[in-house]
Amino acid sequence: MLMDRLVSRIIELQSPIVVGLDPRLSQVPGFIKEAVFADKGKTPAAVADIFYRFNKEIIDHIYDLVPAVKPQIALYEQLGIPGIDCYLKTIEYAKSKGLLVIGDVKRGDIASTAEAYSHGHIGMVDIEGTSHTIFNEDFITVNPYMGHDSVEPYLADCKNYGKGIFVLVKTSNPGSRDIQDMLVTDKKTAEAFPIYHHVGKLVSEWGNQLIGKHGFSAVGAVVGATHPEEGKVLRENMPHTFFLVPGYGAQGGTAKDLQGMFNKDRLGIIVNSSRGITGAFQMGAYSSYGEANFAEASRAAVLDMKKDLMS
Amino acid sequence: MLMDRLVSRIIELQSPIVVGLDPRLSQVPGFIKEAVFADKGKTPAAVADIFYRFNKEIIDHIYDLVPAVKPQIALYEQLGIPGIDCYLKTIEYAKSKGLLVIGDVKRGDIASTAEAYSHGHIGMVDIEGTSHTIFNEDFITVNPYMGHDSVEPYLADCKNYGKGIFVLVKTSNPGSRDIQDMLVTDKKTAEAFPIYHHVGKLVSEWGNQLIGKHGFSAVGAVVGATHPEEGKVLRENMPHTFFLVPGYGAQGGTAKDLQGMFNKDRLGIIVNSSRGITGAFQMGAYSSYGEANFAEASRAAVLDMKKDLMS
Repeated sequence: MLMDRLVSRIIELQSPIVVGLDPRLSQVPGFIKEAVFADKGKTPAAVADIFYRFNKEIIDHIYDLVPAVKPQIALYEQLGIPGIDCYLKTIEYAKSKGLLVIGDVKRGDIASTAEAYSHGHIGMVDIEGTSHTIFNEDFITVNPYMGHDSVEPYLADCKNYGKGIFVLVKTSNPGSRDIQDMLVTDKKTAEAFPIYHHVGKLVSEWGNQLIGKHGFSAVGAVVGATHPEEGKVLRENMPHTFFLVPGYGAQGGTAKDLQGMFNKDRLGIIVNSSRGITGAFQMGAYSSYGEANFAEASRAAVLDMKKDLMS
Repeated sequence: MLMDRLVSRIIELQSPIVVGLDPRLSQVPGFIKEAVFADKGKTPAAVADIFYRFNKEIIDHIYDLVPAVKPQIALYEQLGIPGIDCYLKTIEYAKSKGLLVIGDVKRGDIASTAEAYSHGHIGMVDIEGTSHTIFNEDFITVNPYMGHDSVEPYLADCKNYGKGIFVLVKTSNPGSRDIQDMLVTDKKTAEAFPIYHHVGKLVSEWGNQLIGKHGFSAVGAVVGATHPEEGKVLRENMPHTFFLVPGYGAQGGTAKDLQGMFNKDRLGIIVNSSRGITGAFQMGAYSSYGEANFAEASRAAVLDMKKDLMS
């Protein structure tokens, strides 16, 4: 199963890092944009082409350093069909270089609809007895607000195809407090705890039947780097759950904030960085690489992040 | 603004109904499938073609009876690019017949990502000073689990382009109890109430600045027909919020269950039916229409639903 492979690759590379592929025009070097816009005009198709060229360069420079990439589908979806085409090609290219792919799609819907999402993204779509692979991510992110029946179809595909999911538990953004931090009361014990603990408990239960050789379930959790104390408690409560951790770097999370989320084997998390890696050439520390060497700047940023996390 | 237009059309047509366009092969007449499969094989492109032909027939037979249709993007997305193409063409065709379109996308993500979803679906995408319309739904559904900053980008596009959103508050599925029904405690007053009340309150606040001429805000709520008591209390608490109500018919909700969700003017809700309309020809009451007249069966089912709701 792919959660095992993810953990194995983290151990091999000593690199609990996933590079977020969230391309934005403002973060793409001018020379890539100018060539394509001159050819195709300022169109969604041109932007999709630019994003693919950009992603390909980044992948070529980081694929031997990290186990996985995480494209955020919104940045592609906003371009319509050429954007989805770019998302699909990015997944395919990343896999061809041996990377695992976490599709950051955050889908969540009633069971019959979740089944369609699940089949399309991590399972197979049946067309009158013929099976079709569509998006083919290795993992996707899932929103739990609609409860167990909205998650079950993904569990079936995790089991059938060895795939995995990461369910939102405590997200990295400021608004995560609005609902996730509300104190809920257990109807039986009258004990009070934040809703994200309750969600964490559900996530653990959903993953109980899918635990792999490293002791981690195919059902992971999204836990923001910006909440170190909360992350520590969640780690204690969820020993078999792997955490996908956004919020490092640009959003303010530091290596120190992550310490409590590791288990005693220094495993249990994979930390995402998007802008901090792909936009490195625009930052002071890497500006000497220049636009022309933007992907080398990204490689240097990955190496520095690895050093930071493993120290 | 489009929420005003939605309410006006409901009044004009005396029809608080939205037809869910959630095509499934098992619910498409054989003669449509056979012709396309013979031509294109059992491929995602063939299914997308089949779904578009099916949707077009349905739209042609119901556009003068209801204010809106609601395509569920998952059923299209699962087919990859041809599916997204079908989703886009379905939106365009529905609008050409004067229908409003509610894109059931249930997106939810951090602010910078939500902005991409919002621009792509209900706003405009900027490409170096040029503006592009991509999906162009009139309304979309949004998941609130990540809190205020994950919703704000949509509010901006509601304001800028007159669009609307429906935020998940209390969904129709059984699993909605897992998180939405948990009792939360107000930190100040120590009062306990279910989380969906808290979300309802947030939704009201988010919509406060966007109230239209009928007294309803551009920020609506999704409230399942399967929860009549809960719906009644939410209506009292949220007088300026329009409800998109799934769960009527196939999921078990009845006209009686909806009574408490109307306001004193018999306004305030739009009720979705998907299978109950588009799959009518497969049901006992409409089977005399036969496969060949599947869209006439759907028209009859809309007329019956209208009678049921307005009685």
